[in-house]
Amino acid sequence: MDADQQWKKQCLNKLDHSKKSSVDEDIEHVVILLNSCEEYFTTSSCSGRIILIDGVSGSSDVHKQNCVWLFVSHQKCKSEDLISGLARSSADAVLKFEPFVLHVQCRQLEDAQLVHSVAINSGFRNSGLTVSKTGKILTAVRSTHGLEVPLSSKGKLLVDHDYIHFITNIANKKMEENLRRIQRSVLEAEEEGGEKQKEEKNKTTVYKRRRKREQHCQTDCCHGDGSSSAPDLEDCLDLFT
Amino acid sequence: MDADQQWKKQCLNKLDHSKKSSVDEDIEHVVILLNSCEEYFTTSSCSGRIILIDGVSGSSDVHKQNCVWLFVSHQKCKSEDLISGLARSSADAVLKFEPFVLHVQCRQLEDAQLVHSVAINSGFRNSGLTVSKTGKILTAVRSTHGLEVPLSSKGKLLVDHDYIHFITNIANKKMEENLRRIQRSVLEAEEEGGEKQKEEKNKTTVYKRRRKREQHCQTDCCHGDGSSSAPDLEDCLDLFT
Repeated sequence: MDADQQWKKQCLNKLDHSKKSSVDEDIEHVVILLNSCEEYFTTSSCSGRIILIDGVSGSSDVHKQNCVWLFVSHQKCKSEDLISGLARSSADAVLKFEPFVLHVQCRQLEDAQLVHSVAINSGFRNSGLTVSKTGKILTAVRSTHGLEVPLSSKGKLLVDHDYIHFITNIANKKMEENLRRIQRSVLEAEEEGGEKQKEEKNKTTVYKRRRKREQHCQTDCCHGDGSSSAPDLEDCLDLFT
Repeated sequence: MDADQQWKKQCLNKLDHSKKSSVDEDIEHVVILLNSCEEYFTTSSCSGRIILIDGVSGSSDVHKQNCVWLFVSHQKCKSEDLISGLARSSADAVLKFEPFVLHVQCRQLEDAQLVHSVAINSGFRNSGLTVSKTGKILTAVRSTHGLEVPLSSKGKLLVDHDYIHFITNIANKKMEENLRRIQRSVLEAEEEGGEKQKEEKNKTTVYKRRRKREQHCQTDCCHGDGSSSAPDLEDCLDLFT
């Protein structure tokens, strides 16, 4: 077993620390696709959800774990669900739509760039990389698509039922758009995969030359300038095995 | 003029493409601090704002440029401001609180890691790096702190004035917390600066050795493995001049 396979095996053993211990239905194919690649594994994910939480909205640092979850849905919902959830509010209830989020650990920087590029092209504009102190490279796929509506204060409803009906429609429309973007990201990834295969056919010589240079440098070179540590995406495709 | 200075000069010529052509008052010191460093320059920024925009909330891809801006404030606001803005709504008005956002172009990956680390430690949890196709490295500083409340539909108000008063308070509290986080990021950056100076004193020999290795590798080495292209943050500090 080579070092990369070892890396992947170690990582897979650590998978799924979530309470739920399963992947949301709407993104199962995305998670399976990524985890089938040597370069990637997913560390956490949520397909998108409509939540109603009860907490103290004025506090400077609201942690969800200190709140009561009145309602959660990973699908579209009905205004009746929210109304019955709100009936149990004793503090400040807030309705939120939280879009798809995915954290992908990546073997190399260029692998992370590829996921990031697919995410941006699919409409997940708040995506970004994280390079940790220990050199761990993560791509976080995030959307700008949100909704955060205070609905009660000290358990007292602040709006009428028509408004709750209106806001349910908005949250459901955001859920639909969210699923469209997830589907777009799968198509984008498949397109990148096709491009990659073409590149591999055309660049066998370049690829071999690069591998030689890499072997030469791996023990000797730690820091290049910006352009060498962050090569063009096109440059990376032929290294993407 | 060496290559790095040339890089910085070229970049500075391109600064501030915003309509406003000036930096928001509350973050002027952050932008000045970053631009005084050789390794960084800021490409866009917003200190945080409360906005009221009028558009079509049901459309799948809402672009702010297609909306009417009924009200904008980079400071705390009064419910009267929002009420008079809403009086001019003819479509679907939405109140948003948008927190501090900052894009910093960085010379090297390790410089970007440092900004990212300061941002995360200050509470800007949605921050992330972008490495473009051309090798340009950006750190985006982003917060999870938001608010997005639909208030009118086809020009008709959906809530009462008490609710608008309530929501104004929430938006203002978010603005206060936002400014606290910005201040925390300046303190974090100063702390990192102090650590950096200590590291520089202790690691002169290591630093010189690294520079030698870099010079040796710059023309020869393009791609290391994950650990070499993404060194520990501690490793980077002595390269942070």
